[in-house]
Amino acid sequence: MRLELVAIGDELLKGGVVNTNLFFLSRALSFLGYEVKGQTVIGDERIEEGLKTVWTRSDVVIVTGGLGPTLDDKTKKAVGLLLQKKLVVDQKVKKRLLKRGLQGAVLESLSKKPQGALVLPNFCGSAPGLVMLKPKGALILLPGVPEEMEALFDQAVAPFLKKHFPLKKRFFQEEIQLCQISEAEVDPQLRKFKLKRPDLRIGIYPHLATLRVVFSLESSHEKKARALLSGFKKKLEKAFFPYVFQAQSGDLAEALKDIFVQKKLTLALAESCSGGALGAALTSVPGASKYFLGSLVTYANELKTSLLNVRPKTIQKYGAVSLETAEEMLQGIFLTTTADFGIALSGIAGPGGGTRLKPAGTLCLAYGLRGKKAQLKKLFFPFERKLFVKYAVSFALSLLWVKIKAL
Amino acid sequence: MRLELVAIGDELLKGGVVNTNLFFLSRALSFLGYEVKGQTVIGDERIEEGLKTVWTRSDVVIVTGGLGPTLDDKTKKAVGLLLQKKLVVDQKVKKRLLKRGLQGAVLESLSKKPQGALVLPNFCGSAPGLVMLKPKGALILLPGVPEEMEALFDQAVAPFLKKHFPLKKRFFQEEIQLCQISEAEVDPQLRKFKLKRPDLRIGIYPHLATLRVVFSLESSHEKKARALLSGFKKKLEKAFFPYVFQAQSGDLAEALKDIFVQKKLTLALAESCSGGALGAALTSVPGASKYFLGSLVTYANELKTSLLNVRPKTIQKYGAVSLETAEEMLQGIFLTTTADFGIALSGIAGPGGGTRLKPAGTLCLAYGLRGKKAQLKKLFFPFERKLFVKYAVSFALSLLWVKIKAL
Repeated sequence: MRLELVAIGDELLKGGVVNTNLFFLSRALSFLGYEVKGQTVIGDERIEEGLKTVWTRSDVVIVTGGLGPTLDDKTKKAVGLLLQKKLVVDQKVKKRLLKRGLQGAVLESLSKKPQGALVLPNFCGSAPGLVMLKPKGALILLPGVPEEMEALFDQAVAPFLKKHFPLKKRFFQEEIQLCQISEAEVDPQLRKFKLKRPDLRIGIYPHLATLRVVFSLESSHEKKARALLSGFKKKLEKAFFPYVFQAQSGDLAEALKDIFVQKKLTLALAESCSGGALGAALTSVPGASKYFLGSLVTYANELKTSLLNVRPKTIQKYGAVSLETAEEMLQGIFLTTTADFGIALSGIAGPGGGTRLKPAGTLCLAYGLRGKKAQLKKLFFPFERKLFVKYAVSFALSLLWVKIKAL
Repeated sequence: MRLELVAIGDELLKGGVVNTNLFFLSRALSFLGYEVKGQTVIGDERIEEGLKTVWTRSDVVIVTGGLGPTLDDKTKKAVGLLLQKKLVVDQKVKKRLLKRGLQGAVLESLSKKPQGALVLPNFCGSAPGLVMLKPKGALILLPGVPEEMEALFDQAVAPFLKKHFPLKKRFFQEEIQLCQISEAEVDPQLRKFKLKRPDLRIGIYPHLATLRVVFSLESSHEKKARALLSGFKKKLEKAFFPYVFQAQSGDLAEALKDIFVQKKLTLALAESCSGGALGAALTSVPGASKYFLGSLVTYANELKTSLLNVRPKTIQKYGAVSLETAEEMLQGIFLTTTADFGIALSGIAGPGGGTRLKPAGTLCLAYGLRGKKAQLKKLFFPFERKLFVKYAVSFALSLLWVKIKAL
């Protein structure tokens, strides 16, 4: 079964929005064991033409976008033309939308579907999903609003696929997550695996301070495939033990929450250049309140002094971005909060504010346990401002991980 | 000239990473006036087949990904097969990489190119860009690492396109950015514009608490087109004046920086549920230090009390998530910092922590000028945790904007 994804919308071709729908669908289908053979983005004015190419070569096509009531929503019309089906009003849909207070042209437009289409009710929004069947295939239309699309996929599309397109040979997948390890460091090991099993697919996905390695194998023997993959995984885990983390979401912050809670430690931060982004990253995980107390975002130097007790002399002598200031910020955390562990960040996010000796991209970190000697680290991420902050946050998370894991 | 984009990589089809490269390229090309006719994502094992379809129907194709030295990088080989060109070593590239300390199989692999390809040197990484020309067309290969790809595009691809594929009929575009206004509120006005100019393309892109409306027109008369578009823009601006903001990056934080600096006001925050995300959003803009002092991220109640002077009685009686607590947090900002303006957020990000009367998704805000009565606002964003925080931040930014604009 050949499955492809299509996203509709001029805004995607113009870079008005990031395409998170194809990301969601690819990830969700991959978890179900389906292989996505291609993704295509088509503009509003070219839906019929673009869809024809994909539909002709595929069995199942999932399309998102262009189902709404506004004037830039043109998917249903194009699909009608492509499949030579008239657009007709679905009375059930109309009734449901009427109840929700819709009327006029919007009601009319949202109630229409290509003749013969099955309706997937949308409980999070107004435009329902639609399915057109062909022998051994289906064209599935979903709305473009991410929350609606995601809910419809989980509630209706996933069960539909499982029922009508059950998998025979399946893709099995294992992954391992590392931090502070580079692509080049794992590559030799991976090449050995590949020699053993030439059909093994390996993906290496570096992301800031973390690295995800994915092994996959197509097989009809689940047990064998899983054993093989988990063997490869264990070898890597052993070789890189201190840097391996586990998190369902792939997010180091999740692993940190687990380990802090497990070790019964609390954490507080002092941030400057990151503006609160490290606190935001840590609290993006449910349950963060079990160990995370807070963050003192002392962007202005006056706050470093008044809130964290950093001596004005230290800032004067070494600069706000220095290991000396970072260390005093860390001590300030222990003064101001009851945290067991602290980390302080000060850096130059740029583009302005750098000097020859301390260029934009410089990051100074101090971290450690209350009452113990602080560990200090100076790093350099010469990137654009937002990317600098992302690296700073990711690196801080990875430092925390390696340190707490070893405690 | 028909231009299409291609991204290579199994990780994209499996949902391992979000595709920001196609987003960047689409946006950058759109700014230059080029229209992107399609985006396609192709898996590592299907590059030749997938690229053939796109290359056959297009004049210019920009491909990202699969140029690196690791075993999952297969783009050059596939392009060689597609164009029937041998892979040969480019001595200049090899020399440059040797100087940078590369060696062995990695050096060899990175130095190779399909015979006849032009080289676009990569100053941010190791894999260079490559260009294969055809009569009236070009196949442009760029590395997949976003920072390298973006730098190469700006430095080499944009000038190349301008020189070899200058625009005749161009797309002109205007946009207007609004906050706290819904799609439905602007739609009637936009339909009127469309009646006047049926060839006007309108895109409506809601994003959290903001809305971007884009008008575009294909024309060979720049002056006429621009006058028409700016007329439409002015009409909308007039109708929604208090909610209109301007920011080159499209980012409300940029508009806020400008208006705070212009009005010579400083700002400090007290955050709880957002964990620092509001501070991070505000400081993502260069120059934020000109008005932004910092944020007290008091995630734990003990910090609300010790740092912001919130009375334990208030938390006990009304809860940490209440307008009463938010108001005391705001007063705490004025006690602890010298800020002219403050905003305090407390909410339940979920999934846990909600009650029947205060479900997850509840957000309480207090904001205002030092010495003036605080404005209080209770909102409800019943979304998944990360999305809740995004809405909370976007809404807080929009409240700040409307308030400061009116001062």
